[in-house]
Amino acid sequence: MAMELVGPRNVSLLTDFYELTMGASYFEHGMQGRATFELFARRLPERRNFLLACGTEDALDFLEGFSFDDDDIAYLRSLDVFDEKYLAHLRDLRFTGDVWAIPEGELFFADEPLLRITAPVIEAQIVETFLLTCMGFQSLIASKAARVTLACGDASFVDFSPRRDHGPDAALWAARASYIGGATATSNVLAGRIFGIPLSGTMAHSYVMSFDKETDAFRCFLETFPRGTTLLIDTYDTVEGARRAADVVRELGDRVQLRAVRLDSGDLPALAKEVRAILEAAGLPEVQVFASGDLDEYRIAEFRAAGAPIDAYGVGTQLGTGGDVPALGAVYKLVADEDGPKMKYSTGKATLPGPKQVYRFEAEGQVRHDLMTMADEPAPGGARPLLEPVMREGHRIREREPLIAAKERARASLASLPEALRALDEAATPYEVQHSAELQRLASSRGVHA
Amino acid sequence: MAMELVGPRNVSLLTDFYELTMGASYFEHGMQGRATFELFARRLPERRNFLLACGTEDALDFLEGFSFDDDDIAYLRSLDVFDEKYLAHLRDLRFTGDVWAIPEGELFFADEPLLRITAPVIEAQIVETFLLTCMGFQSLIASKAARVTLACGDASFVDFSPRRDHGPDAALWAARASYIGGATATSNVLAGRIFGIPLSGTMAHSYVMSFDKETDAFRCFLETFPRGTTLLIDTYDTVEGARRAADVVRELGDRVQLRAVRLDSGDLPALAKEVRAILEAAGLPEVQVFASGDLDEYRIAEFRAAGAPIDAYGVGTQLGTGGDVPALGAVYKLVADEDGPKMKYSTGKATLPGPKQVYRFEAEGQVRHDLMTMADEPAPGGARPLLEPVMREGHRIREREPLIAAKERARASLASLPEALRALDEAATPYEVQHSAELQRLASSRGVHA
Repeated sequence: MAMELVGPRNVSLLTDFYELTMGASYFEHGMQGRATFELFARRLPERRNFLLACGTEDALDFLEGFSFDDDDIAYLRSLDVFDEKYLAHLRDLRFTGDVWAIPEGELFFADEPLLRITAPVIEAQIVETFLLTCMGFQSLIASKAARVTLACGDASFVDFSPRRDHGPDAALWAARASYIGGATATSNVLAGRIFGIPLSGTMAHSYVMSFDKETDAFRCFLETFPRGTTLLIDTYDTVEGARRAADVVRELGDRVQLRAVRLDSGDLPALAKEVRAILEAAGLPEVQVFASGDLDEYRIAEFRAAGAPIDAYGVGTQLGTGGDVPALGAVYKLVADEDGPKMKYSTGKATLPGPKQVYRFEAEGQVRHDLMTMADEPAPGGARPLLEPVMREGHRIREREPLIAAKERARASLASLPEALRALDEAATPYEVQHSAELQRLASSRGVHA
Repeated sequence: MAMELVGPRNVSLLTDFYELTMGASYFEHGMQGRATFELFARRLPERRNFLLACGTEDALDFLEGFSFDDDDIAYLRSLDVFDEKYLAHLRDLRFTGDVWAIPEGELFFADEPLLRITAPVIEAQIVETFLLTCMGFQSLIASKAARVTLACGDASFVDFSPRRDHGPDAALWAARASYIGGATATSNVLAGRIFGIPLSGTMAHSYVMSFDKETDAFRCFLETFPRGTTLLIDTYDTVEGARRAADVVRELGDRVQLRAVRLDSGDLPALAKEVRAILEAAGLPEVQVFASGDLDEYRIAEFRAAGAPIDAYGVGTQLGTGGDVPALGAVYKLVADEDGPKMKYSTGKATLPGPKQVYRFEAEGQVRHDLMTMADEPAPGGARPLLEPVMREGHRIREREPLIAAKERARASLASLPEALRALDEAATPYEVQHSAELQRLASSRGVHA
């Protein structure tokens, strides 16, 4: 490792302080029984009709590797609030729990547990913060990418977000989640290296500006990269840039093969039409039009509605930050302990009690409705359970899944969405998530109508 | 290091692919001259009257440590687009440039360069992506925190964002930037360890729910932490919770000292008044009321306007993700190369040419206006230059500044804001940034009215 950016990368200590103080109190009072927590979204964010599960694999890596090192313990000791017995307990702490999860790329909806953890309460509590940031963020971005996929129709899109993402982890996870949600590539080289995601890149305005003439920039770039190249044509004047690109390609002849021209500013649909016409007139029908510049699913849908001849999009800021919805609002709640099911009553924040399972009913290739049950209820007929066992006593039950499997699952999930749920705005009738009679009974016996 | 989360933490490869392809073309054509790039925000985000500089120290760490390792090069080779000469050049590449920057905690405005880099063009280009994510994100959050500081008035606030931030780096940087922008503490234990930021933590609903009675939870927590403790009182019923907290404190007497009670749901201003009254009636005037739950600067300002007796706030999602503005939209643009000043003409994205300096005019403790000049113009009288030299030939000129210095600078910056710019909505008259005659001349000679 050539450098560490912000100190140690054992992120086990990435936890809220109260997890450790609560742990100290549990420890002092001998409360080390097993508890069950569920991670879920209380509601779908605005304008959303579904969410896409993502982040589970990284969450499981974290749980398997969880431990405090001596430096962590020395820091905690320096706070002067914990006694040595508890610090020794923390030093030896590993995650020993059982985990169930909805696989990455699967659809999920409000209140449905994305992850269910049963572990000694101190362990289950301390890992909360990381699990929420990891799975909440990745699910947010995978879901955003899925919306961009729906908006793109036959066109494709790539992740151009790293420069606007919230730091290196965000950029890596945004690239990963976007790829699962439907992006064909990323501009993020580190994400390419770590996750094996295909890379995409064109050129910047600064490159064009480094030459006296735009034509010289195009010629030099094609000389270095004669095949599969994209030229950025809007540094000075987009239409003129398109003509110059065509001229250079004609000049260089068979030695080069231009894949696309990129437009990054101005009235993109109108310019795309002009550029398309120039390319056709120049006998370059195979050259694609690539558009970028503050795009999101809404603008792409507008462009498509306007008949803009754009083949591919670069989506940056709005994809990697979540854009109109920068946080999923995922929560992680105690649903049971050794005394049985538990629930929270706080105004507007009440939870459903007990460990749960979710069953999905499908017909004719489309999702129909979900049924949320207690985890130990018999499975209903004609439906498949979404939560699968993924970790037992702190160890993965199966290998980390290849990224492509999650991507394929996401593709199938989107294909199974009924037309109304594919809209970019809230559907008149949301997807139905039923609660089993047993869940309703338990919730209402505890004061909340499930 | 007990674990690595997502592969190698040499983040030098966190760059957009086009930086490397452009570099290859520069390399092939022997274009290795020095170029100057500036990092700035094209405009203030919506409802913003100012921004606070942040992220410089981490950016400089990155530049000092920049290098590709053998595994990075092996990955780049596997892409089959770069030749061995260029790969060898990349293997030996270090950042050797000169850097000027506006110090952390200083105010800055649209078009003002936060950072100015002069380096061989390939180096200057490859570091772009990281610099933008690092300084763009941290400045975004420091600016958001500054707005929360202004909204809080005499009250204080802490960073509760880690669970909703976009991954570990985002959570660390959000804690750091929030602290600089005015937060008194963070709940993020890893940020406490790495940056030395004070920690803040209370208890979660799950703790309260782990006991049969709320009173037992309060008693147990006070037994473990008898001093400076905060009790969460809204798990079942806030008003009843306040009474129970008071009862437990009375029961335990001198052995304990309750610092605050926390409200996390419901009509917070109304509940705060009821809770305040209960605390007063119980002879606990020193116990503070702490509020949390989807707060931001707008809601805090409303609460204060409603006279809510709230002493401190926990601010999470909206602080750490930027909330209503999740990205700064910072850019990094070529302003000069060996042929002289450069500028970009793209529609709506034109830039000001040449290396620049910014001078700030202050009077009677308040900022009056800024003057942007060419970097080599003589300094105007009665103003101070904002950009300082921070790195020469790839090495820091001075040590990493203690966090508290940036925090103190930010405090002074906020104190120097005229009343109109302290508003949470856009001021009728924005802060004035003048352009020197020389800058105007150069920009207009190149077609853009500066």
